[in-house]
Amino acid sequence: MTNPIRPTDDEARALARDLMQAARFTALGVVLDGGMPLVTRTGFGLGPQGQPLCLVSSLAMHAQALRANPACSMMVGEPGQKGDPLTHPRLSLIGRVSFVEHGSPEYAEMAAQYLRSHPKAKLYIGFADFSFVCLQVETAHLNGGFGKAFQLGPQDLQFTA
Amino acid sequence: MTNPIRPTDDEARALARDLMQAARFTALGVVLDGGMPLVTRTGFGLGPQGQPLCLVSSLAMHAQALRANPACSMMVGEPGQKGDPLTHPRLSLIGRVSFVEHGSPEYAEMAAQYLRSHPKAKLYIGFADFSFVCLQVETAHLNGGFGKAFQLGPQDLQFTA
Repeated sequence: MTNPIRPTDDEARALARDLMQAARFTALGVVLDGGMPLVTRTGFGLGPQGQPLCLVSSLAMHAQALRANPACSMMVGEPGQKGDPLTHPRLSLIGRVSFVEHGSPEYAEMAAQYLRSHPKAKLYIGFADFSFVCLQVETAHLNGGFGKAFQLGPQDLQFTA
Repeated sequence: MTNPIRPTDDEARALARDLMQAARFTALGVVLDGGMPLVTRTGFGLGPQGQPLCLVSSLAMHAQALRANPACSMMVGEPGQKGDPLTHPRLSLIGRVSFVEHGSPEYAEMAAQYLRSHPKAKLYIGFADFSFVCLQVETAHLNGGFGKAFQLGPQDLQFTA
């Protein structure tokens, strides 16, 4: 069987970072107790060090699943209105998350930054059941459109100051 | 902690079926060997009996993962251009998939139906590495917008002829 993965180049790295920077929400994948996957939608942004993060409510099943099992995937990159949606690039991140709890100084810093790109989140970012989950990326799969697949590592996704 | 799940009603059932019927692609969640989740984008449609299905290439990691472990989640329901994307309804299906292999009479029937809603898929639906994965839904989570969560069973998602 043909290996469909292309060698990683600077264009792929730039596309992956662009997708992360543009994303305001994500398809979040978690593994439930019992081993079934669950995909849900959450807000998505980048933290002070450029790390991918989601804003989650502890009332939601995905947050409860991540407390029990931090293994996580986040897909970013939305198709436009025109053409085959599968020709639009998207990035699937895989890694483990850690929680940044509501009420901590780190939460306040992240929330201030998050609100700059997600102004409507001000309606709920102050609720006590909300926290951030920050992803430590282990690997990522970039699909740049039909037949343009790349496998990236955390170093390929780093933002330089 | 408050239970955020509302009692299922006909409005929720109708919304869930509308989301499935309108969807042309999905965020597909699988569990990789080793237990990490992976979320990717694939085409999505409904089969002859109204069953949720995806068109996948055997070259893709998600297809290989589903061959090894049929546990699967599919999220449908895309946000519009305006407003907080988290106010837009979406449905997360959970279940197990079975493959409908390229070259089988069932594949031909599904492909003919799929092409009516996905005309651009004619570019690749005939490729030998493509097959359908059909989901046997076990449970589903409907988020009808902020604070409107429902848990549905397969019977809530059935289309009546």
